[in-house]
Amino acid sequence: MKTRVTELLGIQYPIILGGLHWLGMAELAAAVSEAGGFGLITAGSFRNREELSEEIAKTRTLTNKPFGVNITLGKRRKMDEFFAAAIEAKVTAVFTSGYNPEAFVQELKDAGIKLVHVVPGIRYAQKAESIGADAVVIVGFEAGGHPGMDEVTLMAMIPKASKVLKIPVIAAGAISDGKGLAAALAMGAEGVQIGTRFVATKECIAHPAVKQAILQAGETDTMLTLRSIKAAFRVLRTPNAEKVLDLEAHSAGVEEILKISGGEASFRVMREGKLEEGLISVGQGMGLIDKIMGAGEVIEAIVQGAQERWSALGRMF
Amino acid sequence: MKTRVTELLGIQYPIILGGLHWLGMAELAAAVSEAGGFGLITAGSFRNREELSEEIAKTRTLTNKPFGVNITLGKRRKMDEFFAAAIEAKVTAVFTSGYNPEAFVQELKDAGIKLVHVVPGIRYAQKAESIGADAVVIVGFEAGGHPGMDEVTLMAMIPKASKVLKIPVIAAGAISDGKGLAAALAMGAEGVQIGTRFVATKECIAHPAVKQAILQAGETDTMLTLRSIKAAFRVLRTPNAEKVLDLEAHSAGVEEILKISGGEASFRVMREGKLEEGLISVGQGMGLIDKIMGAGEVIEAIVQGAQERWSALGRMF
Repeated sequence: MKTRVTELLGIQYPIILGGLHWLGMAELAAAVSEAGGFGLITAGSFRNREELSEEIAKTRTLTNKPFGVNITLGKRRKMDEFFAAAIEAKVTAVFTSGYNPEAFVQELKDAGIKLVHVVPGIRYAQKAESIGADAVVIVGFEAGGHPGMDEVTLMAMIPKASKVLKIPVIAAGAISDGKGLAAALAMGAEGVQIGTRFVATKECIAHPAVKQAILQAGETDTMLTLRSIKAAFRVLRTPNAEKVLDLEAHSAGVEEILKISGGEASFRVMREGKLEEGLISVGQGMGLIDKIMGAGEVIEAIVQGAQERWSALGRMF
Repeated sequence: MKTRVTELLGIQYPIILGGLHWLGMAELAAAVSEAGGFGLITAGSFRNREELSEEIAKTRTLTNKPFGVNITLGKRRKMDEFFAAAIEAKVTAVFTSGYNPEAFVQELKDAGIKLVHVVPGIRYAQKAESIGADAVVIVGFEAGGHPGMDEVTLMAMIPKASKVLKIPVIAAGAISDGKGLAAALAMGAEGVQIGTRFVATKECIAHPAVKQAILQAGETDTMLTLRSIKAAFRVLRTPNAEKVLDLEAHSAGVEEILKISGGEASFRVMREGKLEEGLISVGQGMGLIDKIMGAGEVIEAIVQGAQERWSALGRMF
């Protein structure tokens, strides 16, 4: 398969691992890259530059294929040291999200590293294009994690985004099978970014209880929390998620909400399997996830499914 | 183009006019059918059986091609007389929405009329299949009007629905161009139902002010109202829509809310152009609607765009 995204990243299939806090580690990133997709190490899971550098080095022991680093820019934490690690290691691409990555564009370009910015809407994608991003990921309302505040879906964004932007568009949200990939490409995307489907893989470091929760849940089992603090966060519908909505409805303080929704609680959930201690970030694509597979098998199934779907369209047209 | 939906309805292209309260009249329905799609007359816009029968007869003077009637079942109004009119006139199909149409299945089958039920989620589609519907329309979160309470998008529903259902699936929500049609088919749908794009056509009886409002708005300019009364209603973001949300937040009575959101106010908006008197039901597909076209031109553009997209996929695969 060949799109501007496969060319940009030097990969075989236009399938990119999502940014996964606490879970975007070497094993999973390498497995995705090794199978012809594009693996991402999620920088926010590490304490400092050295830890990220070690994880990048570890990934290189597992695959010779291209991979990248995901860096979320925000108010709470300075990410400069992670850019330094990514640049030093000359990873193929840095995927940024959250705040505007403009301050890092020149440095990345000088190092020959591609910049892909992840955004929840077309106007942010246009901004990313204007500051020199090589591609954008557009995250739909259906996506797990942070789908933005506009509540606009992929169907409403990707056909238009691929018309108004010059740089290639990657679609993210609820894509779990070959039909999803085929549909995203039909919409005008040139790649997809997939999170939840890759969490339920053998190589993902997520606690087995998290993977089981994903297998058991369906497309209606997510909730959008944290709208009240302008940080919409799509998570599994659990008692804790309901509690966060309740805290929000009663104007609780951000600190109280973050005790449940924040990164430390997330670590206990995602890595230690203490599901009752935090939130579980997942997308609406859960409806199609019913077994734990190898990450490579996931890619194979998605590519094959997309090709079958493309052939089926041929019988319609 | 050929799918089980084009076969079922006897049409050339798998494009179906949405149910459009006050707007699904003979001229628009006939124009859609005449161009190879499937036109629908929306029964709820009429006062009684005779009025609907007259509109069906009028449609027959404008086209010899198949068309149908859309009937929304609810608590507020008995729709039996509209089924009687549709059956008497032997329209090709009745599209039902809202409540379970089981009571009418046998009568429709006896008359050789196809039943397509419109639902906002997979479990409702399974129910429709079990009672004998010939096809289902699955409405995504992105759709105008009533997208249901689950807030699940087409990307998260159609690939799964087309896997778990035996009857054909029609996708509805934010489809305005050929990429949208191609994507819906890639997801596994065998047809699309389109509302907002057909409102902004020459043949639609909507007041010009409504059409202009659609042209000027983008994909982020809708809001979901009436969640508090379990009747989620996607409308244009207007002062009235904000006012309804405010009334809901302050637990206003249903009657007070319906003064703005109800059918009478809607008539003044949609047909008389008094936009300040009610709500304007529209979907997130508005981002791609930038000119008023003939309904036939819309269909031609969508079909051509989908074919181009399918060819483009061929260069990727």
